[in-house]
Amino acid sequence: MDEGNRSATGSVTGRALRVLEAFTPTAPVLTLTDISRRTSLPLTTAHRLVGELTSWGALERDQDGGYRIGLRLWEIAALAPRGLGLRELALPHLSDLGRVTGENVQLAVREELSVVYVERLAGQKSVPVLTRVGGRFALTPTGVGRVLLAHAPPEIQEHVLSQPLVRYTERTECDPGRLRQALAEVRHTGVAVCERQVTMDSVSVAAPVYGPGSEVVAAVSVVAHVEAVQAYALVPLIQVAASGISRTLNGAPPPGRR
Amino acid sequence: MDEGNRSATGSVTGRALRVLEAFTPTAPVLTLTDISRRTSLPLTTAHRLVGELTSWGALERDQDGGYRIGLRLWEIAALAPRGLGLRELALPHLSDLGRVTGENVQLAVREELSVVYVERLAGQKSVPVLTRVGGRFALTPTGVGRVLLAHAPPEIQEHVLSQPLVRYTERTECDPGRLRQALAEVRHTGVAVCERQVTMDSVSVAAPVYGPGSEVVAAVSVVAHVEAVQAYALVPLIQVAASGISRTLNGAPPPGRR
Repeated sequence: MDEGNRSATGSVTGRALRVLEAFTPTAPVLTLTDISRRTSLPLTTAHRLVGELTSWGALERDQDGGYRIGLRLWEIAALAPRGLGLRELALPHLSDLGRVTGENVQLAVREELSVVYVERLAGQKSVPVLTRVGGRFALTPTGVGRVLLAHAPPEIQEHVLSQPLVRYTERTECDPGRLRQALAEVRHTGVAVCERQVTMDSVSVAAPVYGPGSEVVAAVSVVAHVEAVQAYALVPLIQVAASGISRTLNGAPPPGRR
Repeated sequence: MDEGNRSATGSVTGRALRVLEAFTPTAPVLTLTDISRRTSLPLTTAHRLVGELTSWGALERDQDGGYRIGLRLWEIAALAPRGLGLRELALPHLSDLGRVTGENVQLAVREELSVVYVERLAGQKSVPVLTRVGGRFALTPTGVGRVLLAHAPPEIQEHVLSQPLVRYTERTECDPGRLRQALAEVRHTGVAVCERQVTMDSVSVAAPVYGPGSEVVAAVSVVAHVEAVQAYALVPLIQVAASGISRTLNGAPPPGRR
């Protein structure tokens, strides 16, 4: 781990946070040895930190002696305004959208150079999606990601477009110039449509959610089977849901974009 | 704050965790001065810890300079098996229960001497409920709480019953003897019915969710207007949902209780 990237990682607080960071979706349960190895901390240091985190409830020990993220941490993290707070306000609108379309509905925010999914309602007979609540994904190939990137500061946009982009399918757009044009279209039309960008059978259609300062704070999308829906027929439904969520946040698009 | 209660609170890790703990549902945004006051930490110490937590993403600074819980913490906390993990597995069953009944549906676990709500779906025309995802509530007056307490270790039961209990309504049961009997009935019948215990117009009906070791890991309930439903008519629906969630967890009731 490159410690120079983050000022906190060298301090005691930073080491405790590194222990929490050792847990991932693919490794949600870790032994003390796993934690020591993943954090590059000596076993004695890891042992002391894990003890402190467990006594507070940030970690829990299971019956087999493995450690996992504790409910106490989840309780406090539930206060994150961009996490459960946003999800709580948005849920009725997302449920309506899911019921009317019968498809997958997603709510996401941008964290640095990624999409983070805040809510995901699975459509009962829709196409399978790869996302997970609390999970990250790339910005450029997803509807929510393009909406969030289109309204991100220009330096973030250029940073993302200057990186090598993952080609998920033969159709995944990886050309910076064409992506730049796609983002301009998203700003112009108020909607992003991504066909066959992540899997060959899916299309995602997304619209922005505005906060009180007319800034884009989140994006809402429907992900459906590309042959089952007319993507553009979904647009007004998604825009109604996105406007409903914006209104709940006391937000609205800037005057020029109403 | 009594520092003797928690071994971690005196250490640097403990102080960082105390900063996180300063945030509550009623105070989700705090200034540095608020944090210093709530944690009883000197302003300089609070300033350093807040800086470290913010640089890692456990806290975020808003436009007005206030601090709030950050999305990065929420992402990691989403890995808590008893939080979002459980919720993710349970959601399809909870949605079905909500759709069929049209009432409020709740999923909860026990943390020490409290109920913690892991999911809450609001019924569109149902009675208002006081709960919040990630929020705590008392064990004895709620359906989910009685299920969880009925299957808790005897020392936890006695600890709860020996404390003064909050009287939410004139009907709230606060007598330890009658509550002990109610818990025995919950174990015998496999269901808890709480009428007018939290508000005078509500009834909650709850059933246990079993884990792989036949232990009760959660409880699912419907909360409805007391005059709108026959509580006992809800029982089979709730038991079907609870069994469905148990099955998803590879869990089942002990042989005697199938």
